[in-house]
Amino acid sequence: MNKVITIAREFGSGGRELGRKLAEGLGYDYYDKEVLKAIVDKTEYSMEYVENVVHGKSHVLFPINVEQSFDPVYDELVMEKRKVIEAQNDVIKEMATKSNCIIVGRCADYILKDVPEIELFRIFVYSDFESKVKRTLARAHEGENLTEKEVEKQIKRINKDRAAFYNDATSLNWGDKENYDMMINVTKQDTDKLVQELVGFFK
Amino acid sequence: MNKVITIAREFGSGGRELGRKLAEGLGYDYYDKEVLKAIVDKTEYSMEYVENVVHGKSHVLFPINVEQSFDPVYDELVMEKRKVIEAQNDVIKEMATKSNCIIVGRCADYILKDVPEIELFRIFVYSDFESKVKRTLARAHEGENLTEKEVEKQIKRINKDRAAFYNDATSLNWGDKENYDMMINVTKQDTDKLVQELVGFFK
Repeated sequence: MNKVITIAREFGSGGRELGRKLAEGLGYDYYDKEVLKAIVDKTEYSMEYVENVVHGKSHVLFPINVEQSFDPVYDELVMEKRKVIEAQNDVIKEMATKSNCIIVGRCADYILKDVPEIELFRIFVYSDFESKVKRTLARAHEGENLTEKEVEKQIKRINKDRAAFYNDATSLNWGDKENYDMMINVTKQDTDKLVQELVGFFK
Repeated sequence: MNKVITIAREFGSGGRELGRKLAEGLGYDYYDKEVLKAIVDKTEYSMEYVENVVHGKSHVLFPINVEQSFDPVYDELVMEKRKVIEAQNDVIKEMATKSNCIIVGRCADYILKDVPEIELFRIFVYSDFESKVKRTLARAHEGENLTEKEVEKQIKRINKDRAAFYNDATSLNWGDKENYDMMINVTKQDTDKLVQELVGFFK
């Protein structure tokens, strides 16, 4: 039975790095941006459109809580969004049933939770706000020159988007402990040490 | 530096069994009821009184949110409760600085979080409500004959008491992910397998 670890993570926590290194340590396949590429391959949509939908920015354009409207243009936009979500579900299930792997983000915990052919372990990675700010500032691309205030805003906005997308797609609350098998607070953890410990856990 | 693992756990989740077996697996000392015995030894109070205070039942008698009253009898009761809490803090710090150990319950995560001489790891163990009911029913003492409805009530009541005591003693919320380094959902986990995995994590 394939072992599949899903990693949901707060922006700024370093969950992506943790996932990548853990996949290396365990010798598992690793999927992150690859999910989006596979959605683009599967649908007729551009990467930009797919990214807009799966990063939750589409909420600004068409609030999904209005299920049906009397506006055919609006309804078509909702239907197209649904197509992206369905392609995402298919892509993630295909990845999970192909080999042992780690999948970062994309509501993979929810999408895979009732797939019988895999051994699923759902992780949520989080950290204190202060630690998220520090990490994001340290990792800003050269030339970005964001102030601390701007970084704080960015963290709040992206995590709000992630929550909104997850809640919308799953009807559950992003970060609620019931949705995960393990939640890891990385605030005081050294990433490499934690990866080593988690390799010990999963091996 | 001593390694200290604190385990807070929902009633019915099996966190105590997990803690005991993990201590065995790691070769750590294990403290659970021992904390109460040590409080009794340290103070002039009876086990019954200490249990009443630390199990949060005292809230019924004297709501702690009213910090000062004009009733000297009430104030004295609050002061006596404080003495038990202080004794608990001392006892837990003594245990933590003595040897590698696991301490179950008793707000130990909070009490130890700023102790410099130890390497602290704070775990919260939880499970779905249905799984808590099943486990509690299966482990009821012979002759208890509790109905499922009664067990459900018991679980809710005890977990409410635990939360109230923690929130009162720490001004934090029991079970909030920020207060722990790792939260483990044991709903679908086999205890012995999980213990083995955690031994791999900590070794």
